[in-house]
Amino acid sequence: MLSIDLNCDLGESFGAYKMGMDEEILPLITSANIACGFHAGDPLVMERSVALCKVHGVRAGAHPGFPDLSGFGRRNMSLSPKEVKACVIYQVGALKAFCDRASIKLYHVKPHGALYNMAAKDYKLAEAICQAVKEVDETLILLALSGSEMLRAAKDYEITYASEIFADRAYQSDGTLVPRSRKGAVIEDEEKAVSRVLRMVKEGKVKAEDGKEISLNADSVCVHGDGIKALAFVRKIREGLAVNGIDVTGFSF
Amino acid sequence: MLSIDLNCDLGESFGAYKMGMDEEILPLITSANIACGFHAGDPLVMERSVALCKVHGVRAGAHPGFPDLSGFGRRNMSLSPKEVKACVIYQVGALKAFCDRASIKLYHVKPHGALYNMAAKDYKLAEAICQAVKEVDETLILLALSGSEMLRAAKDYEITYASEIFADRAYQSDGTLVPRSRKGAVIEDEEKAVSRVLRMVKEGKVKAEDGKEISLNADSVCVHGDGIKALAFVRKIREGLAVNGIDVTGFSF
Amino acid sequence: MLSIDLNCDLGESFGAYKMGMDEEILPLITSANIACGFHAGDPLVMERSVALCKVHGVRAGAHPGFPDLSGFGRRNMSLSPKEVKACVIYQVGALKAFCDRASIKLYHVKPHGALYNMAAKDYKLAEAICQAVKEVDETLILLALSGSEMLRAAKDYEITYASEIFADRAYQSDGTLVPRSRKGAVIEDEEKAVSRVLRMVKEGKVKAEDGKEISLNADSVCVHGDGIKALAFVRKIREGLAVNGIDVTGFSF
Amino acid sequence: MLSIDLNCDLGESFGAYKMGMDEEILPLITSANIACGFHAGDPLVMERSVALCKVHGVRAGAHPGFPDLSGFGRRNMSLSPKEVKACVIYQVGALKAFCDRASIKLYHVKPHGALYNMAAKDYKLAEAICQAVKEVDETLILLALSGSEMLRAAKDYEITYASEIFADRAYQSDGTLVPRSRKGAVIEDEEKAVSRVLRMVKEGKVKAEDGKEISLNADSVCVHGDGIKALAFVRKIREGLAVNGIDVTGFSF
Repeated sequence: MLSIDLNCDLGESFGAYKMGMDEEILPLITSANIACGFHAGDPLVMERSVALCKVHGVRAGAHPGFPDLSGFGRRNMSLSPKEVKACVIYQVGALKAFCDRASIKLYHVKPHGALYNMAAKDYKLAEAICQAVKEVDETLILLALSGSEMLRAAKDYEITYASEIFADRAYQSDGTLVPRSRKGAVIEDEEKAVSRVLRMVKEGKVKAEDGKEISLNADSVCVHGDGIKALAFVRKIREGLAVNGIDVTGFSF
Repeated sequence: MLSIDLNCDLGESFGAYKMGMDEEILPLITSANIACGFHAGDPLVMERSVALCKVHGVRAGAHPGFPDLSGFGRRNMSLSPKEVKACVIYQVGALKAFCDRASIKLYHVKPHGALYNMAAKDYKLAEAICQAVKEVDETLILLALSGSEMLRAAKDYEITYASEIFADRAYQSDGTLVPRSRKGAVIEDEEKAVSRVLRMVKEGKVKAEDGKEISLNADSVCVHGDGIKALAFVRKIREGLAVNGIDVTGFSF
Repeated sequence: MLSIDLNCDLGESFGAYKMGMDEEILPLITSANIACGFHAGDPLVMERSVALCKVHGVRAGAHPGFPDLSGFGRRNMSLSPKEVKACVIYQVGALKAFCDRASIKLYHVKPHGALYNMAAKDYKLAEAICQAVKEVDETLILLALSGSEMLRAAKDYEITYASEIFADRAYQSDGTLVPRSRKGAVIEDEEKAVSRVLRMVKEGKVKAEDGKEISLNADSVCVHGDGIKALAFVRKIREGLAVNGIDVTGFSF
Repeated sequence: MLSIDLNCDLGESFGAYKMGMDEEILPLITSANIACGFHAGDPLVMERSVALCKVHGVRAGAHPGFPDLSGFGRRNMSLSPKEVKACVIYQVGALKAFCDRASIKLYHVKPHGALYNMAAKDYKLAEAICQAVKEVDETLILLALSGSEMLRAAKDYEITYASEIFADRAYQSDGTLVPRSRKGAVIEDEEKAVSRVLRMVKEGKVKAEDGKEISLNADSVCVHGDGIKALAFVRKIREGLAVNGIDVTGFSF
């Protein structure tokens, strides 16, 4: 039986600032990527996010980002691989402490925003992230863009990895995402988005923006919980998967 | 044979900012309290500090503080016990990850600055710190002011603890330190400071500012590495201890 | 004809984090206290807030706070008067630059949160704030709690000041607010709150929590724009004022 | 008579962290670029730096940088021009308040580190900086790399500008600096550095790393005050200028 993981970034509130509908999205997903205090999140939010994962039986993962709270980790920053490695160790270690005390396992690491996008294309950064992940806990799974340099580095460093696909984003013919700044980057038509997800999961294929057919691995679909509309879309994806006999469950290898 | 631990705060550099003579003080001490990024320190500095502890065979401990970089964690802040607990878990967890990857043990936790001073007198904060320490790793040792609320809470929470004394600070008759803002808070006469240390270690006694004799436990002496003069003073203390047949070694229980 | 100013804290969004319904509250108020980047707000938010004040003909004021983004400036911090003074000059100067370029006047300064509450009772902090305000621009008006040390200092420093009253907060018999942590601190009954406002404006009197009658000056009422309910309450206050023939307009002296 | 300005970055200390020998370099220079709290500096340091400029009769300028304290503003960040503009207005405005209260004029603005280098080549960022500078105070002078996009934008926006040259840095044939990461970026031979300065000031020419002769304008030489050796080098430059009859004085147009 085919199965797929649904992952979502959460724990992105900070102090008095609330972001995302964490409690509403948790019943709908199988893996949570929890912000670690650099681009979003704070110690109290991390504690609460881990507790919510436990309650909902959702896998907890670390979601480390650049030290850029005012830019929400979405701005490229020229950190050296050495700096990236130390920043990832720090953030993953901090979240792991919250998991340890709650007696739940920290399952995976998914880099955030600009760090994710830069490391998808830059092997040196990808390598730094893999070294960090492996050195903190060699059973951790790296969750990253299918076909990216991050997964290539994970292979080289013998880290278990899961390939991520995007439901509502257009792909370029090299397998990377069309940048948000470009027209057509986000797929607005929900029916189309759902059918793309189904095809990626069942056939491992998707059509790039230029019409070219590309291959990818689909271990996990990235979904969003930042509004009523986003939640409704996740429900639609789950329906589509159910109708097609695809199980929603955490990735396993 | 009598023995005593010498501890020093280090790893307090931040980015381009250098602070302290970490490499010079490490050969002279037995326990290092490493800043964890809130009041001082950053991921690269933490990585380097842990590596230096390993090289010098010095015990690594976490030195969590208030989230107040511009005040170096020295300004009182009214965090709730819940906030303090989460902040300590976060910081200790982050440092533990660096210790784990370097295959050295994280031995102890010593709160920093205003957090140390506030929790020395406030049982609720002391309790929050002890809960955090115990939940991250129940083998961790709490290092705190002899006779303080922190050690009372450590006892209540069944955490191993070590009592800290100060070589160059005057005591009040209730066993707390004379605040730095008051005249006579710092003992300038080095000979006098050394002889006070010797008496505290050998007899467990020191004279308070009002002349009253007070009792304390001396498991560890706090020393400083922030200048040539501070280093010379540490050497003097070591000489005094050696002449008196007191071994300098990590605390054990 | 009696008149009163309605002031509201706004511009408290930060980066990707949205806070408050600034565009909805602006048509209802006469003075805006704009966050300056320490406890909330950022340069882009400040630029936008100033532009919105211009559009709505609302007076722009600076709302400086403690350097405590994670605590939203609501946690007491033991900054020295010297530190407070420099922090206020910095924040007010930054906001003034945005006002200057938009060709609108920066009218007033109202300290935020813990800084407001601490300086209401501590003359040394109040003095530091007044020195900062006066040195940045001696035509600035200080907006602060009626009867507070801040207004006493403003008088001593010959700064124009406006007395603030609170619609939904209970008073202690010394004229300070009942702390939020205590039961009965917030007046939930909207009718009662409105009638209190009316009496404070018309008679300069309000009943303290212990039943004692206290006197105060009412130049400006603090209202909130952080939700649908808050907005509805502001409309109720405006109705009450209109029915009683009290004009809503910026304070003038 | 030929004349040249000597400028130095200062006010880069932060909280408990000291950086640079500000008091020693001030008697040797004519323009100071004062950090504004984003990459370095804090309100108290800014207050002190402005006071020192006044004492030494050195012109005060703003030195705005990226919001990257842990990277000291030296890491490229992909801020939008809109973000850059707001960040510059904020920082310059904050420093201007300290100058106003000290009754000294804020003379110029020189962007820092990665912002300086990125805007030297990117017209859109250069434009954002020029808009910010002009909108805060149209009498401000922009100090930036000779031949850079920043000066081209300054011309377009009709801002007075001063061309900066570097004593100890190698140039590329397009007039930009050899990046620090490359060998030969810094000219270690002090005699050679001094003679290059003299030729740039007298002839407006320097030899690029590939031997090609390039032309530049020399209104101000950038010097450093971060150590005994740096100070000695500044003294050597001043001697060389004096011997050659070149006056050291603030730029004027």
